[in-house]
Amino acid sequence: LLRLLFSFQNFFKKAWELGVDDPRKFIHCLKVGLALSVVSLFYYMRPLYDGVGGNAMWAVMTVVVVFEFTVGSTLYKCINRIVGTSLAGVLAIGVHWVASKSGEKFEPVILGASVFLLAISATFSRFIPTIKARFDYGAMIFILTFSLVSVSGYRVDKLFDLAQQRLSTIAIGTALCLLVSMLIWPVWAGKDLHDLIIRNMEKLADSIDGGIAEYFTDNSNTDDQDKKDSRQKLQGYKCILNSKATEDSLANFARWEPAHGNFGFRHPWTRYLKIGAMMRNCAYCVEALGCCMNSDIKANECTKKHLSEVCMKLSSHSSMVLKELVVVTKSMTKSTVIDFLVGQMNSTVEDLQTTIKSLPTQYSPPSTGLEAHDEDKEKKDNPIISPIIVPFVDVIPLVTLSSLLIEITIRIEKIVEA
Amino acid sequence: LLRLLFSFQNFFKKAWELGVDDPRKFIHCLKVGLALSVVSLFYYMRPLYDGVGGNAMWAVMTVVVVFEFTVGSTLYKCINRIVGTSLAGVLAIGVHWVASKSGEKFEPVILGASVFLLAISATFSRFIPTIKARFDYGAMIFILTFSLVSVSGYRVDKLFDLAQQRLSTIAIGTALCLLVSMLIWPVWAGKDLHDLIIRNMEKLADSIDGGIAEYFTDNSNTDDQDKKDSRQKLQGYKCILNSKATEDSLANFARWEPAHGNFGFRHPWTRYLKIGAMMRNCAYCVEALGCCMNSDIKANECTKKHLSEVCMKLSSHSSMVLKELVVVTKSMTKSTVIDFLVGQMNSTVEDLQTTIKSLPTQYSPPSTGLEAHDEDKEKKDNPIISPIIVPFVDVIPLVTLSSLLIEITIRIEKIVEA
Repeated sequence: LLRLLFSFQNFFKKAWELGVDDPRKFIHCLKVGLALSVVSLFYYMRPLYDGVGGNAMWAVMTVVVVFEFTVGSTLYKCINRIVGTSLAGVLAIGVHWVASKSGEKFEPVILGASVFLLAISATFSRFIPTIKARFDYGAMIFILTFSLVSVSGYRVDKLFDLAQQRLSTIAIGTALCLLVSMLIWPVWAGKDLHDLIIRNMEKLADSIDGGIAEYFTDNSNTDDQDKKDSRQKLQGYKCILNSKATEDSLANFARWEPAHGNFGFRHPWTRYLKIGAMMRNCAYCVEALGCCMNSDIKANECTKKHLSEVCMKLSSHSSMVLKELVVVTKSMTKSTVIDFLVGQMNSTVEDLQTTIKSLPTQYSPPSTGLEAHDEDKEKKDNPIISPIIVPFVDVIPLVTLSSLLIEITIRIEKIVEA
Repeated sequence: LLRLLFSFQNFFKKAWELGVDDPRKFIHCLKVGLALSVVSLFYYMRPLYDGVGGNAMWAVMTVVVVFEFTVGSTLYKCINRIVGTSLAGVLAIGVHWVASKSGEKFEPVILGASVFLLAISATFSRFIPTIKARFDYGAMIFILTFSLVSVSGYRVDKLFDLAQQRLSTIAIGTALCLLVSMLIWPVWAGKDLHDLIIRNMEKLADSIDGGIAEYFTDNSNTDDQDKKDSRQKLQGYKCILNSKATEDSLANFARWEPAHGNFGFRHPWTRYLKIGAMMRNCAYCVEALGCCMNSDIKANECTKKHLSEVCMKLSSHSSMVLKELVVVTKSMTKSTVIDFLVGQMNSTVEDLQTTIKSLPTQYSPPSTGLEAHDEDKEKKDNPIISPIIVPFVDVIPLVTLSSLLIEITIRIEKIVEA
């Protein structure tokens, strides 16, 4: 029993930490409670109750189902719910009218067949990727309302009243949800996406910088706490590898959001996805680089020392470019320094290439006849230093990728500025 | 107008192809239609209607909301819905009883406060990862039912009847959904996961094999169609990179499924996730390998030829191991060949290392004093061949990873057999 109690305590402690980490979660819970209490008032107060009728529970339901963490997803669900309901309601009333004209015998047949067919087509439409991304919930609500209205229409006979009541209660629910979610400490999916990208960029910069630095510096005399910190920094890129799903859904919701803060109405959210994909590519390279560095193959100390300076310069330059990008993306202005930094990075790449080229002469005669290939130069190195070359070849696509990244971000800045 | 018509036609064509690709999607649509029609019958038939009462629409709603593509997700929603509803119903009735005892004045206060507090705690619980994965839907239904019952309890006064009706209609709906989804061409999330892992393994094997082969063979005399095919095969690993989300959700749903086919009740689904993660790691390496091969740095033809044989042998061996793994996972038996194949692969790795070691002697004298490091041998090579070495260093973690993979799969086989 004590152990059970202990595990319970542990569980609550973890849950509490989760909330403390991100206080917006607590606020979200309070918002849900508030919205529900307000909507319950409609039910408790007699005059309102008589006005809306027994269907007031639809308003409660709407609030519970529609209220989501970010404004974007709430809006997405609200719009989908309203459009789906009204479309299905209109269609259902039309079908019902046709059915009632066609006589007692055919009525249930027509109604049944229409439910069957529409359910099939709406369900199928949910498999189509573009519809799934934007109108998945709407399609479900469409089937729901259509079958409810057409099925109950056979019995209730007060079809218009039902449809109208349902729509008005849903409108009350959605309006309330939107007000609460947008006015009280709103959580914008777009801002979340923006922050996520920036955070990932920072992590990537730290990983590149820290990884190379750790590899080349002698870290035997640093204490354990420092080591732990740096290790955590190095592992930062890991979460970039799997961030695709989060980015996609955030961008999807961000599309629904109205203009807020620094973000205009048609903010280029897909650009963020592109940057995200680029960063994932970089992270793959960092991953491979980490593989090389952690492999059993130890590099020759002497060559390592020889290369370390340029190497660390390159990594610090590329992470500086990334950090400048972070600043640029944060402020959404065009940076004046970025071109200079990129140039610096590229010149460091050239430095590195020449350093590698100079190495072979110290150990073994360079094989001639290959000088023609410019890129080959960085490969002409003594056998002993090849283990260090390996991370470099990985750094180079990384560098190209980061310069690509830069180009794209500059383009974004232009669009944002425009 | 013609262009609009054309784009419509295009859209339908694409949708149709989507269905032809995976006929289970058509079948799923038919199943939804069937379930809805059957549940509508409850409404149309007067005797049944009188039995269940006006709340029969809850059954319709349940079917629409609960019916999902895979058996696992349907089961997950069904169980969550039933448990959430009954828990909330019982609690709501309890709170209502307490409230009714405490006098006219306090009744709405107690009801309101309980709705507010429970909504907050249930919403917060949805943020906790373990609960989110398994009971997200249940928590939502809990809030929904609790607020509905406690809000309407204040007015309707026939609380027990309402709760009982709601439960029975939901039970009808869920039972119907389960029957239809499990008996008529069931789509098992577990089997899907199994197939996905196998498919990804095959793709990975093809990518490794094809990538190295394409790099080393002269492909100027193959025709375009062949090239396109091989390129598509090479890109196969790309979809492994982003398969994490799919795997996670499938494994999550698979956990809910009863025993089916070759899968027992407590099939080790988490193992599949581990294999998936391993394969993603491999795919990162393949990605880096692809980077190296596509970079501007061209390798020296002579050394390339020298290494090509061992290289291709290694890649074919490692892909053979993967393919054997596919067979093993498919049949879920312990393979007798796998140990042999792994041994073959490892000996090829050694071959490769010796080949690389032998190279320097042809061009330049090997630097002595490093022979002690066993792993270093594969690094001792002539400057000219380093560009080819690069893919190798990537192949080596890949090989280690695949042997890791093998170990884990063998363990799975043991568990499955046991």
